[in-house]
Amino acid sequence: MISLFATDRLTHLYPSIQVFITEQVIPLEREFLSLPFGELLPKLDALREQVKQKGWWAPPLPESEGGMGLSLTEFAQLSELMGRTPLGHYLFNCQAPDIGNMELMLSHASEALQEQFLEPLIQGETRSCFSMTEPEFAGSNPTRMATTAIRDGDDYVISGHKWFTTAADGAQFAVVMAITNPDATSPYERASMIVVPTDTPGFDRVRNISVMGESGEGYHSHAEIKYEKCRVPVSYRIGPEGKGFMLAQERLGPGRIHHCMRWIGIAERALEMMCQYAIRRELKDGRPLANMQTIQNWIAESRAEIDASRLLVLHTARKIDEEGQKAARQQISTIKFYVAGMLDRVLDRAVQSHGALGITDDTVLAYWYRHERAARIYDGPDEVHKSVLARDILKSYQE
Amino acid sequence: MISLFATDRLTHLYPSIQVFITEQVIPLEREFLSLPFGELLPKLDALREQVKQKGWWAPPLPESEGGMGLSLTEFAQLSELMGRTPLGHYLFNCQAPDIGNMELMLSHASEALQEQFLEPLIQGETRSCFSMTEPEFAGSNPTRMATTAIRDGDDYVISGHKWFTTAADGAQFAVVMAITNPDATSPYERASMIVVPTDTPGFDRVRNISVMGESGEGYHSHAEIKYEKCRVPVSYRIGPEGKGFMLAQERLGPGRIHHCMRWIGIAERALEMMCQYAIRRELKDGRPLANMQTIQNWIAESRAEIDASRLLVLHTARKIDEEGQKAARQQISTIKFYVAGMLDRVLDRAVQSHGALGITDDTVLAYWYRHERAARIYDGPDEVHKSVLARDILKSYQE
Amino acid sequence: MISLFATDRLTHLYPSIQVFITEQVIPLEREFLSLPFGELLPKLDALREQVKQKGWWAPPLPESEGGMGLSLTEFAQLSELMGRTPLGHYLFNCQAPDIGNMELMLSHASEALQEQFLEPLIQGETRSCFSMTEPEFAGSNPTRMATTAIRDGDDYVISGHKWFTTAADGAQFAVVMAITNPDATSPYERASMIVVPTDTPGFDRVRNISVMGESGEGYHSHAEIKYEKCRVPVSYRIGPEGKGFMLAQERLGPGRIHHCMRWIGIAERALEMMCQYAIRRELKDGRPLANMQTIQNWIAESRAEIDASRLLVLHTARKIDEEGQKAARQQISTIKFYVAGMLDRVLDRAVQSHGALGITDDTVLAYWYRHERAARIYDGPDEVHKSVLARDILKSYQE
Amino acid sequence: MISLFATDRLTHLYPSIQVFITEQVIPLEREFLSLPFGELLPKLDALREQVKQKGWWAPPLPESEGGMGLSLTEFAQLSELMGRTPLGHYLFNCQAPDIGNMELMLSHASEALQEQFLEPLIQGETRSCFSMTEPEFAGSNPTRMATTAIRDGDDYVISGHKWFTTAADGAQFAVVMAITNPDATSPYERASMIVVPTDTPGFDRVRNISVMGESGEGYHSHAEIKYEKCRVPVSYRIGPEGKGFMLAQERLGPGRIHHCMRWIGIAERALEMMCQYAIRRELKDGRPLANMQTIQNWIAESRAEIDASRLLVLHTARKIDEEGQKAARQQISTIKFYVAGMLDRVLDRAVQSHGALGITDDTVLAYWYRHERAARIYDGPDEVHKSVLARDILKSYQE
Repeated sequence: MISLFATDRLTHLYPSIQVFITEQVIPLEREFLSLPFGELLPKLDALREQVKQKGWWAPPLPESEGGMGLSLTEFAQLSELMGRTPLGHYLFNCQAPDIGNMELMLSHASEALQEQFLEPLIQGETRSCFSMTEPEFAGSNPTRMATTAIRDGDDYVISGHKWFTTAADGAQFAVVMAITNPDATSPYERASMIVVPTDTPGFDRVRNISVMGESGEGYHSHAEIKYEKCRVPVSYRIGPEGKGFMLAQERLGPGRIHHCMRWIGIAERALEMMCQYAIRRELKDGRPLANMQTIQNWIAESRAEIDASRLLVLHTARKIDEEGQKAARQQISTIKFYVAGMLDRVLDRAVQSHGALGITDDTVLAYWYRHERAARIYDGPDEVHKSVLARDILKSYQE
Repeated sequence: MISLFATDRLTHLYPSIQVFITEQVIPLEREFLSLPFGELLPKLDALREQVKQKGWWAPPLPESEGGMGLSLTEFAQLSELMGRTPLGHYLFNCQAPDIGNMELMLSHASEALQEQFLEPLIQGETRSCFSMTEPEFAGSNPTRMATTAIRDGDDYVISGHKWFTTAADGAQFAVVMAITNPDATSPYERASMIVVPTDTPGFDRVRNISVMGESGEGYHSHAEIKYEKCRVPVSYRIGPEGKGFMLAQERLGPGRIHHCMRWIGIAERALEMMCQYAIRRELKDGRPLANMQTIQNWIAESRAEIDASRLLVLHTARKIDEEGQKAARQQISTIKFYVAGMLDRVLDRAVQSHGALGITDDTVLAYWYRHERAARIYDGPDEVHKSVLARDILKSYQE
Repeated sequence: MISLFATDRLTHLYPSIQVFITEQVIPLEREFLSLPFGELLPKLDALREQVKQKGWWAPPLPESEGGMGLSLTEFAQLSELMGRTPLGHYLFNCQAPDIGNMELMLSHASEALQEQFLEPLIQGETRSCFSMTEPEFAGSNPTRMATTAIRDGDDYVISGHKWFTTAADGAQFAVVMAITNPDATSPYERASMIVVPTDTPGFDRVRNISVMGESGEGYHSHAEIKYEKCRVPVSYRIGPEGKGFMLAQERLGPGRIHHCMRWIGIAERALEMMCQYAIRRELKDGRPLANMQTIQNWIAESRAEIDASRLLVLHTARKIDEEGQKAARQQISTIKFYVAGMLDRVLDRAVQSHGALGITDDTVLAYWYRHERAARIYDGPDEVHKSVLARDILKSYQE
Repeated sequence: MISLFATDRLTHLYPSIQVFITEQVIPLEREFLSLPFGELLPKLDALREQVKQKGWWAPPLPESEGGMGLSLTEFAQLSELMGRTPLGHYLFNCQAPDIGNMELMLSHASEALQEQFLEPLIQGETRSCFSMTEPEFAGSNPTRMATTAIRDGDDYVISGHKWFTTAADGAQFAVVMAITNPDATSPYERASMIVVPTDTPGFDRVRNISVMGESGEGYHSHAEIKYEKCRVPVSYRIGPEGKGFMLAQERLGPGRIHHCMRWIGIAERALEMMCQYAIRRELKDGRPLANMQTIQNWIAESRAEIDASRLLVLHTARKIDEEGQKAARQQISTIKFYVAGMLDRVLDRAVQSHGALGITDDTVLAYWYRHERAARIYDGPDEVHKSVLARDILKSYQE
C-alpha cells in the first residue's frame, strides 16, 4: 500500500485481506494447478462464504447493492492483493467478466432485467459472460462485426459467431454485442448489448477453446459460440439501441484498472518467488543463486518496473475517480501496454530464474507465463494502444 | 539450403524431404495438438515406415549402422526441415534423446550392450531416455549430483532421484548418470553412465511432470524418477568408470547443433505463418495486417536473426566436422544462447501477430511458445553459457 | 505538474517559470551550441539578474539564505522545467555541483567558512567544484581513493590526483574528498571534505578533459586536477574529521532527485521535438513522418516511460520530505538507473526520428545524446545501483 | 579471417595488414582525437606512401587501374581490419565517398572525365565528394529532390541545396545528383549524376556542419552546399541522362558491404578494449571488473552479435560476387540494419564498461559512440530498410 493513495478504510482492510490471501487462498494453488476446476468448487464456495461474512463481497459495487462501495483507487489496491493468486478475484466475486457485467447492468439495465439477471449474479449464485470478439474480425477494430440482432416484433433474432467468450461454460446468460442499426452513419452507433440466456434455443457453445494447452471448464474457460437465430425479447437490451459501443467504452476504464492491478499483483508475487528461490537455490556450497549479478539485475529491474506500473495505474485510477474516464483517456491507454509489457518481462525473468522448475506446473509461474501472455493481446493489443495514444498526443501539436 | 554449405548429396535430398514434411507431416499437427500422443502413434508408425523405405532413416548414423552417414553440416540442414513441425525428428528416428544415446553407444558401449539395447533402438523398435538432471541441484553445475551407483560384486546398485528424464514413459532403458567414484580428485571424474532397463526392480517413474500445462505421455513427456536400489550388471556401464562427464561432453557438440537447427526450423515456420496471416488478416476493408509497419519490423528483424542464427550454427557444424569439437568450443557456447534467444523473440512476435488466435491451440504457435520456453534453460541456461564464453574470451587477454 | 504533488506555492510559480524557460532561455540554445561558453556569459548574467529580481533564486535553499525554501517535492517539479534546456539550472543558481556544495556547507561548514566561501556562492558571484573521483579507481567503490590530507600543525597538506571535477575551470574553490584517517576501521570513516581554494599553490588544473568531443570551458567543463602538496588550514574542513562519506551520503538523496528531474525535463523536451518534427517532416506529399507506426510506437513508449519516471521520482521526493533519506533508500537507488535508462532510450528515439538533422548540432538533441550518456555512469553506474538495490531487497527474504 | 571465406591471396595479405594497422595506424589515434585533421596530414601522407609501396593501394580497384583487384568478399575482410581505427580506410585510399566515386566513374564516366578527374583521385592526389542528400527532404525517399540541372546549350546549370556532402571541404570535385528530366514518368528516371568541380562559380560550401559536437575539416567533415547556377559542360555527366538513380543503386551493394565490414572492425576493436579494460580495472584488491557477470554477459552477447554480423555480411558479399547485386537484394537490406544495430549495442556496452573513461576522448570509444550513431541513419534509416525487406518478403506470400 502506498501512503500517497491510502485512505482510512483501505488502511484498515488491507492487512486482513493480505493475510486471507496468503493463508487461505495461496495454499489452494497446488490443487488449482493439478485438478479440473470443478473439483475445486466446493472449497472455493466455502471461502466465498467466508468473504461474504467478513463483509468483503464485491468490493467495487455500492454498499446498497451488497458491495463495499470502494472508490476505484481503493479497490485497485485490493485488486493487487487478489491478483497475487489466480483464485483471488473469484473469491471476492469481482472476477472478470462478471464484475464488468454487474457495473454495466447496475447503471443501464431495466429494473426487470436487474431483478431477473443481476441480483443472482451479485449474490454469486450465477455467473455471466460477455460475448463480443468474433474470430473473423481483428479485435483491434471492434466496429467490424458480423453478428446481427434483427428486430422481429417484440423480439430480437440474433445470429452470429463469437469466440473468447470467457466463462460462458456454466454461465446463466451472455451479454451479446450485436448489430441492431446497420445503417447508422457512425460505425460506433450500430451495435447494441443484449442479454441472451444460455439456454435460449440456438445458443450453441461449440467448444471451450484450447488456450495454451488447456480447454479448461466452467469459470475457467473461453468459449466459441454460435448464435443461430436466438430469439430474446427486445426488453433484454441493455441501454438504448445503437449505444453498445458507448456502454462498452464505459466499462473499459475501470476494467483496465482492475486488469492492470491484477497483473501487478502477479508480478509482485513472481518477484517474491524469484527472490525466495534465489536465496534457497545453491549453485555451489554456500553460494546461492542470489549472489549472481544477472539475478540481481533482474530483481532490481523488476522492482523498478513494478513500482512504476503501480504508480501509473493508481494515478490513473485517482484521475478517473476525480475527473472521470474521459480526462484519463491517455493514461488508460498508457497503462494497458506498459503494465502488460512489464508483466511479460517479470514473468519471463521469474521463470528463467527458477530453471527447469520454472517451466513445470509445480509452481504457479508456468500457469501465468502461459495464460497471461494474453495480457498483451486482449482488450486491444499493445500495438493498437500505442498508436491510439501517439495519435492523441500528436493531435495536440497540430494546428 | 545455403549454397555455401551445400553438398551434392544434400542438394539431392533436400527438396524431397521438404515436400515430405510439408505434405505428409504438417497436416498431422492438428491431431497432434488435440489428441493424446498415443492415439497418433499408428499414423506416425506408418510414416516412419515410409521414411525407412525412402532410405532416410536415422540420417546422422553411419550407413553401416542403418543410417545415412551424413556429415554434421549436412544433417544440420535436414534437421531444420524436420524442426518445422514438432513431429519431424521422431519420424526420422533422430529425435532427442534417442539419437544422442545411439551415437554414444555406437562409440562407447560394449558389443553385448549394443546388441541388446542399441540394435532395437536404431531399428526404431524401442525408445530410450537419458537420466541426468536432479531436482535438488542446479543444472548449471552438472557435477553436483546425489545419485550413486555402488559396486556390489558384479553389479551396480543405483539409488537417486532424477527429473526431466525426457521420454522415460514407455522407454526400454535409461542411460543413467551416477556417481561411481566419489573420491576422484576432479569432480569431472566421479560419475559413470550406466544402462538401466526400465523394468529393473526399484526403477520408479514417479510421474510424468506437468510442464507448461501438459503431463504428456509416451515419447512426449518428461519423467520424475526414483532409483531405489536398482541393481544392474557392471557390464551395463558405457565407457570406462568415472568417465561419464567426458562422454556427456562428447555428445554435447552434435546435440547442440541438432537442437539449434531444430529451433531454426521452428522459427522459420513461425515467420512463414506470421507472413501468411499478416496478408490474410484484414484490419479494414482492403487493409491487411501486412501493411502495418510494426508487423513489417517484426518480419524484417526475424528474417535477420534467423539468417544470422543459421549461418552461426552451420559455420559451427562445419568447424566441428573439420577441426573437431574442442576447436569449436566457443562457437558451441555462442549458438546455444544466441539461437535460443532468437527463437524466443520470433515466437513471441508470431504469437502477438496472430492476436487471440495466437494463444489458442488452433495453430502450433502456442505449443511452441509453451514448450520451447525451455530452450533457454535446458543444456545449461543462457546465463551459464554467456559466462563460460566470456571467461574463455577473457582468458586470451590475460598473461 | 501533477495534481497529486501540487502545492499552492507551486501552482502559482509553475506557469511563470515555464513561460520564462520557453521564451527567454530556450532561444539561447543555438548560441550555446555554437559559441564558447564564455561568450554567452553576459547574456546569462542578465537573465540571472532577472531570475533574482523575480524572487526565483536558488529555489531549494531556505528563504533565510536567499533561496525560496521549497520542499524537495516542489523544487523537483521546477527542476524538470529548468531541465528542458541545458542552461536552465545555471540561471536559477541551482546547478550542480554548486547547489550541492551550498546545501552541504549550510549544514556543516563553520561560520567562518560560510562567510568566506558560501556567501558569494549563494549570491552567484563565485562558482565551486566537488573533487572526489580519481582516475585510478573505479567510481563504483568510492572508498578506494589515494588522495591524502596529512595533518601538519594547523594545516592539511593535500596530495592526490582527481578527475571529472566538474566546473573546476573558473571556480573559486574545490570541496576535496581526501583520506585524513587512513587507519580508521571502517573504510567509510577515513575521508574528510576540505575546502581548497583554486589559487592554493600546488592546485594544478591539468586540463579540461575532452568529453564526447568537447573540452568546454568555465562552468561547462570537467577538469583533471593534481593536488601537489596543497596546504590549507585545518579549519577549512567541512564537518568532523573522517566524516566525508557520511556528508557525501547526505547530499546524495536530494542530488539524485535534482538529476532525475532534470533528465525528465530533457526527455519531455526531446519527446516534444520528436512530435513536432514528425508532424512537420513530409515523407511524401501529404504523408508526414507522424503517420508511421514506428514513430507512433516511440512516442507512446516514451510517453509511458517519462510518466512512469516522473511518478517514481516525485514519489521518492515526497518520501524523503516526509520520512527522510534513509527510509527512501531503495527508491533513491531505483530512480537512478530507471530514469537514466529512460533518458537514454528517449534521446535515442528522438535522434533517430530526426534523421540526419538529429546528429547535427542544429538542434540540442545531439548535445544531450553526447553529454547525457554520462547519466548512466556518474553517481554510480546503473550496474552498481541495481546490485545495491537487489541485495537490499534480498536481505528482507533472508532469515 | 574465417576459413570459409579465405582465399590464398587473402591468407597471404591478412596478417601483414593486421600488423600494419596495429603497429603503425592505431598509435596515431591519440593525435587524431586531439588535433585538427589537417595537422595529422603529413603523417598520414607518409603512411599512404608506405601502403602504395607495399602494393596495398585501393584494394577493390582492378589491378589495371592501380588497385589490387580483390573480390568483394576478399576486400570485405580487409575492410574489417581497416575499420579497427578511424584512419584505416583513408590510408589505403578506399575511404568513402572516394572509393564509391572511383568505382562509379570507372564503369560509367567518359574517358575524358576519367583522365581529368578519376586518375588523380585514384592516385590519391585529389579527393572528391558525393552530393545527394537535401535538408528539405527525407533521405528515406531519395526521389524527392529539388536540385535541378537545367540544360542550356552544351552546359548544365545546376541549382540546389545539399547537405551531408561528406568530405567536400578540400575536395576537387563533387558528383552531384540533380533532376535533369523532371517529366519522366518514373520518379527513378528523373535525376542524373554530374561532376561539378568545387571551384565552379556558384559552388558555395556554406559550412562544415557541426555533427555531434564537431565541425571537422578537410576529409573529416560533412558540408552544407548551395549550388547557385553552377555551370558545367554536359560532358561532365556520368552515364546516360536520367539514369542517376540506376547508377546510385549500383554503388549501393558494395558500399553497404564496405560500411558493414568497417562497423564490424569497430565493434571488434571495442570488444577487445572492453576485455582488456575489464581485466585491468580493479574494483577491489584482486577483484577485476572482468569478474562481474554483467560484463561477462556483455562480452558474450557482443561476441555472438559480431560473429553473426560478419557471417551475414561475408555471405552477402559472396552472393554479390557470384550472383550479382540483384540476387542479394534482401541480404543487402538485412545487413544494413542488423549490423548498424549491433554496432550501436556493442559501442554502448564498451562505453559503459569503461565508466567515466568511456565518455572521455582519451580512448577512441567516445569518438565512435558519437560519429557512428549515424550508422543507423545514413544510406537509409533502419526503419526504411526493415519495411523494404519485409514488403519484399511478404510479396512472396501473395498470389
